[in-house]
Amino acid sequence: MTHAESADPVDDSDKPVTIAYIAASTGVSVPTVSKVVNGRSGVAADTRARVEAAISRFGYRRPNRAVRSNLIELVFDRIADMWGVQIIRGVEQVARQQRVGVVLTEFGPEGGGIRYWIDDALDRRPDCLVAVAQLNDEQRNQLRTGGIPFVVFDPTVELPDGVPFVGATNWAGGRAATRHLIGQGHQRIALISGADRILCCRARQDGYRSAMDAAGLPVDGDSIVHADLTVDGGRAAALRLLKGPRPPTAIFAGNDLQAVGVYQAARASGLRIPAHLSVVGFDDLPVATLVDPPLTTVHQPLVEMAVAATELALALGRGERATRLGIELATTLTVRQSTAPPAG
Amino acid sequence: MTHAESADPVDDSDKPVTIAYIAASTGVSVPTVSKVVNGRSGVAADTRARVEAAISRFGYRRPNRAVRSNLIELVFDRIADMWGVQIIRGVEQVARQQRVGVVLTEFGPEGGGIRYWIDDALDRRPDCLVAVAQLNDEQRNQLRTGGIPFVVFDPTVELPDGVPFVGATNWAGGRAATRHLIGQGHQRIALISGADRILCCRARQDGYRSAMDAAGLPVDGDSIVHADLTVDGGRAAALRLLKGPRPPTAIFAGNDLQAVGVYQAARASGLRIPAHLSVVGFDDLPVATLVDPPLTTVHQPLVEMAVAATELALALGRGERATRLGIELATTLTVRQSTAPPAG
Repeated sequence: MTHAESADPVDDSDKPVTIAYIAASTGVSVPTVSKVVNGRSGVAADTRARVEAAISRFGYRRPNRAVRSNLIELVFDRIADMWGVQIIRGVEQVARQQRVGVVLTEFGPEGGGIRYWIDDALDRRPDCLVAVAQLNDEQRNQLRTGGIPFVVFDPTVELPDGVPFVGATNWAGGRAATRHLIGQGHQRIALISGADRILCCRARQDGYRSAMDAAGLPVDGDSIVHADLTVDGGRAAALRLLKGPRPPTAIFAGNDLQAVGVYQAARASGLRIPAHLSVVGFDDLPVATLVDPPLTTVHQPLVEMAVAATELALALGRGERATRLGIELATTLTVRQSTAPPAG
Repeated sequence: MTHAESADPVDDSDKPVTIAYIAASTGVSVPTVSKVVNGRSGVAADTRARVEAAISRFGYRRPNRAVRSNLIELVFDRIADMWGVQIIRGVEQVARQQRVGVVLTEFGPEGGGIRYWIDDALDRRPDCLVAVAQLNDEQRNQLRTGGIPFVVFDPTVELPDGVPFVGATNWAGGRAATRHLIGQGHQRIALISGADRILCCRARQDGYRSAMDAAGLPVDGDSIVHADLTVDGGRAAALRLLKGPRPPTAIFAGNDLQAVGVYQAARASGLRIPAHLSVVGFDDLPVATLVDPPLTTVHQPLVEMAVAATELALALGRGERATRLGIELATTLTVRQSTAPPAG
């Protein structure tokens, strides 16, 4: 139903669509509508839904801010070792170029974290927000009604259409890593993967399967082990694989930390890398060059992804229409010394 | 000379000390005094010095800000891999507790970086600033006259008295690392150190010398090699040491990255760690547990240091008188598997 077609008694095309108008049309108090419009907490879910429906029906737009705050909000649930700095570096690079301030928030894990971060962020009236975190529906709605454009960095869960994001080509990366091992002559290639609910892990796994299928190599129940994306997770999974009846000659790990765990398991099993076991990681964190031997891994362009996310968010903040709302940047296989043809 | 004793014709104890007053007493225009008072750039050095002298003489205080901005500025010259995240994590921890926003700036190296960061920071009227960077005299003066209290994190150059800082007990850490090696029976213990102009390197080196002296072990020209605080620096220095006429049985590296370089040099020389060579690092970065064997290193409490720096800065921002303006937090030796008694 459009504005003109509405049969609502208070609907009148001549009136400007104000907060008072939304309040009158929904029977909700002006302060409560104001809370919703400003993306604040403290509104019952059904009331919020009613107000949001009216807003989307009548097309309310908050008055343009007179002054840009010149701030971008960068929000993490948890800033991870090694991974976090590269993202921050990309954001700072754009911030220097465009001369905006970066407000950094680490709000903590779901349940254990702070809840007020989004209210505080909205209070600062930033130009835009980049989320290195999975925003839930409510948070996305708060930002949207608060008029703060946002971009999700490397989404790990499926997003509704139209939510801007920047990710990496995880499927292609998984495929490239596996093809590299196949190209060296490996046939028994195992995969250690993070949980299937993590979107990028699922994509990497499907890339692995695709490459194995294309080469006519079997992927059976013993080929894929799930584990936490940590050193400990990788070590435990690799020990399980290496103790099996037909141990793999190559392991593709879910990320670099898992790959370090595979190194530890190989050592504990008396296997040398790459002579007895080839290993490929994913991410290309600084640690990849520090381990012995240096790790062959799929490079994830974290700095460039952060640059792209920040540029997109700032463009949206200036009211520009972005032509590409969702982007995946290409991963690239970085061959170092942890992979070699299988022994004899 | 006190205010009362002044013979300056415009000096008059009854008048409030305003910007106009400072302008009149120095013969400098009001806008220029305002720039100095607000810590802005664009004032000739001698003019600034004259105005600052008058300010310190007459005791001008900027009017209290009506509203706290609830922002803390966190400023890096360069956010280092691994090291940076731990500092940020400590700052964020306090920011969550005290509910302040953190504006993060990476301004880049001296010469190559942006210069406007300090103007932009002052424009945001933050409550305080934490600098993980060596602020020069001019920057410290800008902040001081702008009324923004600041704390220097881990100073690498000598600071004038009265500049608040939080560091670590580098001398004691250097001493503890060396004593650990001596306790295991090593006598030929070499030190790889960063440049002597870096204060913490100099302190670690003096701690090493102190422990060697106390044990009656000689420190000669061959015992200490200077190198960049990088993997490459550590590797090159270690190769030089290991090729000498009386190679050391233990190497104390200037930081963990140099220690990783020592690992590489040992491998290249066919030496096993710790059987043929003991290695100690400094910092206890995440990489210390990822290398093989896990690295014995001096733990630098980066998160706690960042917490302390942030709490101190926020206290100063609230106008509290800090009882301790300069603090060094204790380092602790973390023994892992890269050290053992010397062979034979």
